[in-house]
Amino acid sequence: MSEQTRTEIGSLGEFGLIDHLTRNIEIHNASTILGVGDDAAVIDHFGKQTVVSTDLLLEGVHFDLAYTPLKHLGYKAVIVNLSDIYAMNAIPTQITMSLGISNRFSLEALDEFYEGVYAACNRYQVDLIGGDTTTSQKGFVISVTAIGEVAPDKFVKRSTAQKGDLLCVSGDLGGAYVGLLFLEREKRIFIESPGVQPDLENETYVIGRLLKPEARKDIVEFFAEKEITPTSMMDISDGLSSEILHLCKNSNLGCVLYEEKIPVEEAMKTAAFKFEIDPTACALSGGEDYELLFTIPQADYDKLVLNEQISVIGYMTEPEKGANIITKGGGTHAITAQGWNPLK
Amino acid sequence: MSEQTRTEIGSLGEFGLIDHLTRNIEIHNASTILGVGDDAAVIDHFGKQTVVSTDLLLEGVHFDLAYTPLKHLGYKAVIVNLSDIYAMNAIPTQITMSLGISNRFSLEALDEFYEGVYAACNRYQVDLIGGDTTTSQKGFVISVTAIGEVAPDKFVKRSTAQKGDLLCVSGDLGGAYVGLLFLEREKRIFIESPGVQPDLENETYVIGRLLKPEARKDIVEFFAEKEITPTSMMDISDGLSSEILHLCKNSNLGCVLYEEKIPVEEAMKTAAFKFEIDPTACALSGGEDYELLFTIPQADYDKLVLNEQISVIGYMTEPEKGANIITKGGGTHAITAQGWNPLK
Repeated sequence: MSEQTRTEIGSLGEFGLIDHLTRNIEIHNASTILGVGDDAAVIDHFGKQTVVSTDLLLEGVHFDLAYTPLKHLGYKAVIVNLSDIYAMNAIPTQITMSLGISNRFSLEALDEFYEGVYAACNRYQVDLIGGDTTTSQKGFVISVTAIGEVAPDKFVKRSTAQKGDLLCVSGDLGGAYVGLLFLEREKRIFIESPGVQPDLENETYVIGRLLKPEARKDIVEFFAEKEITPTSMMDISDGLSSEILHLCKNSNLGCVLYEEKIPVEEAMKTAAFKFEIDPTACALSGGEDYELLFTIPQADYDKLVLNEQISVIGYMTEPEKGANIITKGGGTHAITAQGWNPLK
Repeated sequence: MSEQTRTEIGSLGEFGLIDHLTRNIEIHNASTILGVGDDAAVIDHFGKQTVVSTDLLLEGVHFDLAYTPLKHLGYKAVIVNLSDIYAMNAIPTQITMSLGISNRFSLEALDEFYEGVYAACNRYQVDLIGGDTTTSQKGFVISVTAIGEVAPDKFVKRSTAQKGDLLCVSGDLGGAYVGLLFLEREKRIFIESPGVQPDLENETYVIGRLLKPEARKDIVEFFAEKEITPTSMMDISDGLSSEILHLCKNSNLGCVLYEEKIPVEEAMKTAAFKFEIDPTACALSGGEDYELLFTIPQADYDKLVLNEQISVIGYMTEPEKGANIITKGGGTHAITAQGWNPLK
């Protein structure tokens, strides 16, 4: 962001601002019949079903502007919503974005935020079709609704895993949490000693996982290509433990999870050790990785074994057996949720 | 709200809270394939097009809890979004509702809010299908997305009014603004002299217009019954002047508006005179009435003349003539927007 120019947002008025922010919108989808600029947008999914998800992100609760570049924040605000659509085995097609903006934001700052929003829209080929822009007395408020499409009744719920199914996860876990630990540490150091330069050069992997997550479009496309239909699926926003317990509860099943099968990246392990914390704990309890957790019938194992972006981490059991983790040492423990409680 | 019981929201956890708030959800629409409880909801509008609108309501900007009962606020948060769907000549079918809640809210307070939400959902037969619930550091944050359906390409935009069309409005205008003046006055009196009883008994009409607006479902149903398709339509949230200017600009037309034709209610006029303000000014510049502003071909006049809920207030002209109001005294003045700027 240039420090030279500061345009007050109020000087444009609501409609001037909307015109400015939406002047370069490109429409990627034939399903977008009417976009920004009327009382409502119009979508036609042409015989497919419509999938809808929404997230509210609040400054000080979900993000800290002290170490979150606005462009990354705009990108991430879109991604976390697209992730929910992919988690239904659907393809995102549109978003709406509502913002509450405090007067410490300049137009230039808002432009940076929207650069990230449009970068995500372009990468994932979704259309920004509406929203609401208003002032906020305190703090930046972001509300995104993502809309997608799926062939009739081909969506995948959390509640339909079957006994004996393989429990799988995409990508690797725990990185975003360790990235957060580094940024929180640097913020403390900066507050205490503003002259000290941040020491984050070796941590680009984990910090990137936190600040610029991606949604697993590739996995959903891989399913389509290989004709795999997961029996159940959800995205991992709160930590693996918590999400596995949701899947078990909703599907009325138990599971066995193998610690040694949980995918963690070398860079995350090295980073976690700097805080003297167990990488497995980061994967189990850290949030915001936005990977997919899903189950498939055992018969589909051959179809995905060669995909290095997918790990089989366990299997589903009868509910009486509970949800258990078998540690690297061979011990069996009940899985407990340490996930984030956004209400505390 | 009972003062005896106070349950802390944090004590339930996010999922306990969602379970509590959604325990009595009834589904009204066959188009709601999957509702609350998964990564996303699924809708099938069965060959119709999907209409989407969203609004962000922030405490201190859009509402004041000093004089807004939570049940009314929940009701209104739904209504203002449904109004946008009706303004497309569409029928609302679903909503999502995201909330940011500060810890001064108890579970009992939130239950009151949701009582209003469900009352609106039941009255308008829409389904609550998702949302997000999180803590807020300061202030109550409400983000609603409304979804509706319309027969393919039968939606009505703001940009398609035709020269010579009649300019029409539903209901009556200005009431919500005068209601706001009373409540703001009572708040000031209460702050200065807490013992003084509020004197609002004669103002139930205007206060009701502010606190418990309705969306004009009846008008859209009337159009369908009489086979009227407005050439353009929008809802009036910011004041008649501002909305007429939008309609003119978007349709590239001018208009003539007759002051004497603007529908105002006797109770509003009486109330406005107590503040020594002109009822016409309230109608032109006051917001939040949520009436519909629309245009119809002159040939359709006979179809709506008997509907007492519809007033013909003017007609559309070529753009060169501008947007003008002819006053009761016979003078002609350019219409200027005094609408609310939510960014100032």
